[in-house]
Amino acid sequence: MKKVLFATTALVLSAGFASADVTLSGYGRFGLQYNDGRTTAGVFDPTLAETTVESRMRLNIDASKETDGGVTFGGRIRVQYDNDSASGSSDLNAAMMYASFGGFRMEVGNANQAMDSAPLVYASELGLVSSSFGDIQSGFFAYNTGAYSDTNRMGVSASYSMGAFSGMVSYINPDQTLKSLGARKAESSLYVAYASGPLTVSAAGTWNAKGVDGADIAFIGAAYQVNDAVNVGLNYTDELVGETIVGYGSYKMGATTLRGYIANNSAAGNATDTAYGIGADYDLGGATLLGGIQKGYAKETVADFGVKFAF
Amino acid sequence: MKKVLFATTALVLSAGFASADVTLSGYGRFGLQYNDGRTTAGVFDPTLAETTVESRMRLNIDASKETDGGVTFGGRIRVQYDNDSASGSSDLNAAMMYASFGGFRMEVGNANQAMDSAPLVYASELGLVSSSFGDIQSGFFAYNTGAYSDTNRMGVSASYSMGAFSGMVSYINPDQTLKSLGARKAESSLYVAYASGPLTVSAAGTWNAKGVDGADIAFIGAAYQVNDAVNVGLNYTDELVGETIVGYGSYKMGATTLRGYIANNSAAGNATDTAYGIGADYDLGGATLLGGIQKGYAKETVADFGVKFAF
Amino acid sequence: MKKVLFATTALVLSAGFASADVTLSGYGRFGLQYNDGRTTAGVFDPTLAETTVESRMRLNIDASKETDGGVTFGGRIRVQYDNDSASGSSDLNAAMMYASFGGFRMEVGNANQAMDSAPLVYASELGLVSSSFGDIQSGFFAYNTGAYSDTNRMGVSASYSMGAFSGMVSYINPDQTLKSLGARKAESSLYVAYASGPLTVSAAGTWNAKGVDGADIAFIGAAYQVNDAVNVGLNYTDELVGETIVGYGSYKMGATTLRGYIANNSAAGNATDTAYGIGADYDLGGATLLGGIQKGYAKETVADFGVKFAF
Repeated sequence: MKKVLFATTALVLSAGFASADVTLSGYGRFGLQYNDGRTTAGVFDPTLAETTVESRMRLNIDASKETDGGVTFGGRIRVQYDNDSASGSSDLNAAMMYASFGGFRMEVGNANQAMDSAPLVYASELGLVSSSFGDIQSGFFAYNTGAYSDTNRMGVSASYSMGAFSGMVSYINPDQTLKSLGARKAESSLYVAYASGPLTVSAAGTWNAKGVDGADIAFIGAAYQVNDAVNVGLNYTDELVGETIVGYGSYKMGATTLRGYIANNSAAGNATDTAYGIGADYDLGGATLLGGIQKGYAKETVADFGVKFAF
Repeated sequence: MKKVLFATTALVLSAGFASADVTLSGYGRFGLQYNDGRTTAGVFDPTLAETTVESRMRLNIDASKETDGGVTFGGRIRVQYDNDSASGSSDLNAAMMYASFGGFRMEVGNANQAMDSAPLVYASELGLVSSSFGDIQSGFFAYNTGAYSDTNRMGVSASYSMGAFSGMVSYINPDQTLKSLGARKAESSLYVAYASGPLTVSAAGTWNAKGVDGADIAFIGAAYQVNDAVNVGLNYTDELVGETIVGYGSYKMGATTLRGYIANNSAAGNATDTAYGIGADYDLGGATLLGGIQKGYAKETVADFGVKFAF
Repeated sequence: MKKVLFATTALVLSAGFASADVTLSGYGRFGLQYNDGRTTAGVFDPTLAETTVESRMRLNIDASKETDGGVTFGGRIRVQYDNDSASGSSDLNAAMMYASFGGFRMEVGNANQAMDSAPLVYASELGLVSSSFGDIQSGFFAYNTGAYSDTNRMGVSASYSMGAFSGMVSYINPDQTLKSLGARKAESSLYVAYASGPLTVSAAGTWNAKGVDGADIAFIGAAYQVNDAVNVGLNYTDELVGETIVGYGSYKMGATTLRGYIANNSAAGNATDTAYGIGADYDLGGATLLGGIQKGYAKETVADFGVKFAF
């Protein structure tokens, strides 16, 4: 069955001045998910199963070419299957194209969004499917896996890193074929970050998130690597659904990393303002066992456990 | 045009302890198909062409990683085009994820089904598109090429082989998100097989095939390799549409293999209870010419001829 | 992130007599497009933006195997995303299968069409997206990127080249499953060409283009390479929408190639019978900057500028 095997070690044969690469990489994960608060159209639905099997396979197809002058041009298309895919099959997405030179990179098409790319934004996540109630809750035009809901969406982003500093801006238009978007708006986003020694600080903003006029998001986070074993951090988000503050930490003991967070959200409709989660990773050397259990703002319990491997 | 070529010989570069592979493999086939009994909604349709061009390309994308402890985690996504694809394009399918260790293998997601995987089940097939009127006639939740019709389908299977013995169980739920499936049922299947020297014996069962309550299938088959040239076998299936018994054999002369079968099905509505087919393969050394002609239970004549190559 | 890199240099490991290859190749392009005459359902639409971002990534997946006798069997599936994709994602297409031996090649399925493959047919094109008002204006059953609109379309083509001569015939049926196509017809096409030293001559015809009864197209073109820098040519097309004659030329100065054309079309409804365009390519050594500006038969101005790279 197996005819062709490619390995983790880079295999590059240069062909004269310019060289082209096609790279297949990604990850797989599978395990169990538990949620005793599953909803249909936002309302708790007791007919839904609490425990389901989780399964995802992600494959990134990257192609690039470097010019004689040292500029790299490239593109990415993603293939992904998730057990809850609405299509019942793996999905392709819109391509992202880029040009990079030194610390500068520009993306066009299905471009990465600045807030989605900001350091620390997802730092409180844990468990098999990498989730946290301390995350930003609003939607924004992140790099899109699967088909666009807006077929004429067009994004442009630019990022730059120099030493400890990095920054990025993105501008994403939900329909670039129209002169006027009507009630919708194009989304803008930026981040600036500083990472030196044990300290990382990151600030990000998004305006008209997901094309909704006035849906603005502000984020600031800081993390500190106390010693080889202990990392702690604090994130603050201000968005239409209220303010969220989350403190998180991890503790590494050999192959095991323990993780935890506690989050507070100010939204009026919450059953409770406090959510929290604990989890653990265990490094198998080539794959990782991950598990987590979290309590959310609707007092629901969410848990998962399984294995994840990168290729 | 051709920039990157990968060859049949395995190319494995190990990178420290853990190693990851991405493999592209599959096959192509094309030729002619003849069928003088084509139907629309089960009724003979004289407006349909008897002879059509057959064309299929199958590409399996396999990714895997072995841990330090020797467990392999992996996944597969398939890309396939068939000339009769309803989408008019190549289709992706749901991913299958797996873990294997020694003779044990567990699959999750688009898992292989036990009866579909049982030795000898398809042993009477012949011709370009590998078909036989001696096959099991009921549908079951086999490994799915293309999109699921049930988007929340979830399968789990486990198999084990030790020496001459092998066995497998599978459990496939048409909608894992629901607590109750209503009139539908989850499908269960198993097989056990023994293969030693010239003899192979295989038995398999499926309960609630394709989620239909009470649609059970029983299968038993045996094959015997008489000498280097001659192989004979007998399969028996009991399912809702009646019992089928098929005897088949093949005879190898140099690059040519002759194949034949005769099948009897007990269903009440058959125009005839006896179906048969003959065919031949010719090995081109890298590709195979295949042809076959069969007479079915509706007294229709089905024939095909063409070339098939694996990559 | 990057785990596996494949390079432009062919890497072929032969495995006994027969060898199999899987090749990933393609191109990416992105830049800006301007069009002050955008239409909806054929009528000028002032609500449409004149300037849009252009982005395309094309990936061809080619698999092939050579038999001991020297016949190569193979197939291609294409993955492509265009910023104006109706699906909002990259699309797969129907597979093309082929057999080749010496100068002979036969294709089945999503076969290349003879007129689409004829030398010089697209020779007056320029700019980032390779367009020209001197092109053939009728649709025909060209090799299809994305899903078929006719799901049971089936094409067959055969081509042969010997020294300076080459030729090709194609036959494409919009629905091979029907005995009668009703008002539609299968499309036939052929080309013959001669290329020797500085001179290339090409003639092509298509009958019942895109399955439309009586939609015939005739094409003849000639090009002459005056010296290392200068190339000139003339194309003539006769089709239902009238006759088109286009003269074009290019001039190469180091890394820069200047291109231009002037075209005349006889259709009754044109605002003007004369269209023209100028453009330039600049070779970056691994990628190319391309730009063009054209005036069309509706007196619209169309321009584009961007970068294109092959991998």
